[in-house]
Amino acid sequence: MNIAMIRAAQIRLAGRTRATPLLSAPALNALAGRRVLVKPECLQVTGSFKYRGAYAAISAIHPGARSAGVLAYSSGNHAQGVARAAADFAIPAVIVMPSDAPRIKLEATRALGAEVVLFDRATESREEIGAALAAQRSLTLVKPYDDPEVIAGQGTVGLEIAVQARALGVAQADVLVPCGGGGLTAGIALALAADAPGLSVRPVEPEGFDDAARSLASGQIQENNALTGSICDAILTPRLGERTYPIIAKHCGPGLVVSDDEAIFAMAQALVALKIVVEPGGAVALAAALSRAGQIDAETVIVVASGGNADPDRITQAAQTF
Amino acid sequence: MNIAMIRAAQIRLAGRTRATPLLSAPALNALAGRRVLVKPECLQVTGSFKYRGAYAAISAIHPGARSAGVLAYSSGNHAQGVARAAADFAIPAVIVMPSDAPRIKLEATRALGAEVVLFDRATESREEIGAALAAQRSLTLVKPYDDPEVIAGQGTVGLEIAVQARALGVAQADVLVPCGGGGLTAGIALALAADAPGLSVRPVEPEGFDDAARSLASGQIQENNALTGSICDAILTPRLGERTYPIIAKHCGPGLVVSDDEAIFAMAQALVALKIVVEPGGAVALAAALSRAGQIDAETVIVVASGGNADPDRITQAAQTF
Repeated sequence: MNIAMIRAAQIRLAGRTRATPLLSAPALNALAGRRVLVKPECLQVTGSFKYRGAYAAISAIHPGARSAGVLAYSSGNHAQGVARAAADFAIPAVIVMPSDAPRIKLEATRALGAEVVLFDRATESREEIGAALAAQRSLTLVKPYDDPEVIAGQGTVGLEIAVQARALGVAQADVLVPCGGGGLTAGIALALAADAPGLSVRPVEPEGFDDAARSLASGQIQENNALTGSICDAILTPRLGERTYPIIAKHCGPGLVVSDDEAIFAMAQALVALKIVVEPGGAVALAAALSRAGQIDAETVIVVASGGNADPDRITQAAQTF
Repeated sequence: MNIAMIRAAQIRLAGRTRATPLLSAPALNALAGRRVLVKPECLQVTGSFKYRGAYAAISAIHPGARSAGVLAYSSGNHAQGVARAAADFAIPAVIVMPSDAPRIKLEATRALGAEVVLFDRATESREEIGAALAAQRSLTLVKPYDDPEVIAGQGTVGLEIAVQARALGVAQADVLVPCGGGGLTAGIALALAADAPGLSVRPVEPEGFDDAARSLASGQIQENNALTGSICDAILTPRLGERTYPIIAKHCGPGLVVSDDEAIFAMAQALVALKIVVEPGGAVALAAALSRAGQIDAETVIVVASGGNADPDRITQAAQTF
């Protein structure tokens, strides 16, 4: 896993992914007490950065194996990223999703052409179902984060930030990244270490799911006690990956932790000040910039808004708090 | 007024305005029955395309005159565009606004550093108030649309569309543009006539305020009977301008007209499918693509989402219709 893989992924992704802009608004600078630049990956194809990693991984599979199709486990953004990237290659995609996944995410995944296989979280093992399908149909598994090509794809966000920050004259900044399994955090950290060493990544998590912050503080991988209990569903994972943790430990500053209410507040500010829809898990980095300013030293923060697949009720909830 | 002025404006705007991307989503293509590409000017500085024209106009004023400051009449997006562009040049901006303008727009204009002068729509003339201020303080008036430099600034949207469409392999398309006084419509039409002649502009208006459609049909400038009565406040103007009408008549195809409900439906689709906040007046072109497909022939439509300064209650209203 190295910077050359990220640069190679960027070449494969050219013409597929959108180079998202860097947004800003005076109201956010005022709330944060510093300059805030926002990288809206909610505007990425399929509504989150996950398409970058999915496309990078699928494009790296040998064509002979790829043609049989791919398999993924996901209730959310990774499902849509894999479904869309598989459609780009005109290959089958089978997504194993919990039967209680939000209807809007099931429908979006099916609309992208994927075959959705449902399982009951209480009584069935998704790994057993997936392994049987993969064996029967020679499908290649696309992991959500702990895979070098996936990390490389997510790292292209970091390559773009390096160029965009330089164009704005920003040489020093904290880069706040929503962190679940750590694929996006690790990829951006590797890219910035190479291309913009004055930009320092800090992972951001919801309260109660702060395993990355605790892992960084203790020097070894820590786990979360639960997998439900926050509205930030996109980034609720049991622990960092075996591949993502060492990269994060080497390159990232201390983790930040925000409450669900702070995530909703950030969603509302993003709607009104930036005109973008960010889902709760995608809004935690902006939430840290706006509500945890005392824990940040840098004069400029660059915030990744990692996804926007919020359902309409959640958008309403955020708008009504404004 | 010619293409050279638009190219010159683009050079002055470089590093100030954002080159907004072209967005798309399978759900919108399905609703429209054709390919839909969306140019989100809601993501522009100050939340609408108006900043382009304001910056173009103010940057074209002779520095000796400019330093005294600028004046504008507006209850909305033009106010914010002028306030921000004046701040860029560190010159005073006086914005004459009706005392019943939405609080959020008054506050946003003041937050950008402008001096807001309120007047009573029922009893006072904004032109008299503005003329007196301009004379006393040597302020230069920045018109909202019927000015060559303003049209040139808005035309930079068209230059970007030409390049972006070509990169996507789109040589033929209808370009749907929300139309009030016609500055944006005329500017884009001029730019595309020069750089992408296969892209044909069509103005889009709200029901009851379809003066551009009637002007195009009759061959002379027609007026609206009212100035209130639609939620599409950003594009309610009495008539096209003396400078914008001839350009629109020469270059544009027939106008399209949508209802307020169709604008809200388009807002809801933009929130969920594109993750962007578009205000009602900025959503009429998307509304035409989604709800008036039978009146469009082109295989591809490019839709300008011209602004996103919707208040939170309007965002809630749209989200709840989804």
